[in-house]
Amino acid sequence: MTTAPRTRLSPDERRSQLLDLGVRLFATRSLSEISIDLLAETAGISRGLLYHYFGGLAGFQEAVVRRAAADLIARTAPPSEGDVLERLLVSVRAYVEYVDENYEGYLSLVTGAKSGNESLRAIYDEARAALTDRIFSSDTDHLLDDTPAMRLVVRGWSALAEEMVIDWKAGGGVTRDELVGLIAGALPALAGAVPSEG
Amino acid sequence: MTTAPRTRLSPDERRSQLLDLGVRLFATRSLSEISIDLLAETAGISRGLLYHYFGGLAGFQEAVVRRAAADLIARTAPPSEGDVLERLLVSVRAYVEYVDENYEGYLSLVTGAKSGNESLRAIYDEARAALTDRIFSSDTDHLLDDTPAMRLVVRGWSALAEEMVIDWKAGGGVTRDELVGLIAGALPALAGAVPSEG
Repeated sequence: MTTAPRTRLSPDERRSQLLDLGVRLFATRSLSEISIDLLAETAGISRGLLYHYFGGLAGFQEAVVRRAAADLIARTAPPSEGDVLERLLVSVRAYVEYVDENYEGYLSLVTGAKSGNESLRAIYDEARAALTDRIFSSDTDHLLDDTPAMRLVVRGWSALAEEMVIDWKAGGGVTRDELVGLIAGALPALAGAVPSEG
Repeated sequence: MTTAPRTRLSPDERRSQLLDLGVRLFATRSLSEISIDLLAETAGISRGLLYHYFGGLAGFQEAVVRRAAADLIARTAPPSEGDVLERLLVSVRAYVEYVDENYEGYLSLVTGAKSGNESLRAIYDEARAALTDRIFSSDTDHLLDDTPAMRLVVRGWSALAEEMVIDWKAGGGVTRDELVGLIAGALPALAGAVPSEG
């Protein structure tokens, strides 16, 4: 183990480095556990530094959650080519892997958003809208008609996916691959059950 | 308008009367709005009375939520006879109507349960387990195999139903009957997409 040479970081680089650290901590800890003390202990980050870059602990926590949500959206981007169901499967697999690897943080985002924390709620809603809107914009095979009923069903499907991953983490019962197959298979099944308009 | 003659109620009757009032208030108000002041203003109920019957406001609120959850379970009981899909439709219609009519209270139960309030969480989990377990026990036509995968999917479906009703209340887009059809139709579609075992 060698110590990396100290280099002078730009403010943007320093800020980004702090965020990377926050996201790593957030994988195995709830948001409320990311305290000033923890940051001081694990990374020698002082209260003053947090104020300087994020206006305080709350600002840091919010920036971490925002970064984590952006990571989730990036990691679960479906491939641009290929069969629509295969692309869906790739995206759902990435989602399940993300939640599996970042469970504590993910759960605290979901819990925080639903408990009436307005900042978390906004980040959560934006992330979910990005994830579901993408399904319609990337649906070049027109698996889903863009109707109010189908939009409602796709939002329902995203709640189903979230519930199933969280339940699975708590209780198992099926393999991770089976879980991925169940969630991915649910969307075309649900879409097929929506009456067509007109 | 006449005043009903004052009759001497038994303690159980009095307690039940207070709960009925709480459930009515809960239909159009969140749990946190059911305050000592509100109870005093709308029904002349004193702090002392609440302590006597429920040990205080928190005990009263919890009893109200417990009663509301029991009402939901009773109202959405599927008919014992008939085609399995028809019974499912009747049950889902009752669920959607219940949420529609008791929206503020329902939303505060969901929000409270997900925010880490342990008492609300327990009531919510019990109610949801009762609703989903009933699906398996009343499934005399064996629409659903009782496997870990199917249990997971049915829990996912209940999250989908909840999300769809709450979204619908916020944004509309389809009629209530269409919503009922979408939620009820989702379950057999999801069940059909679960690979059979063995």
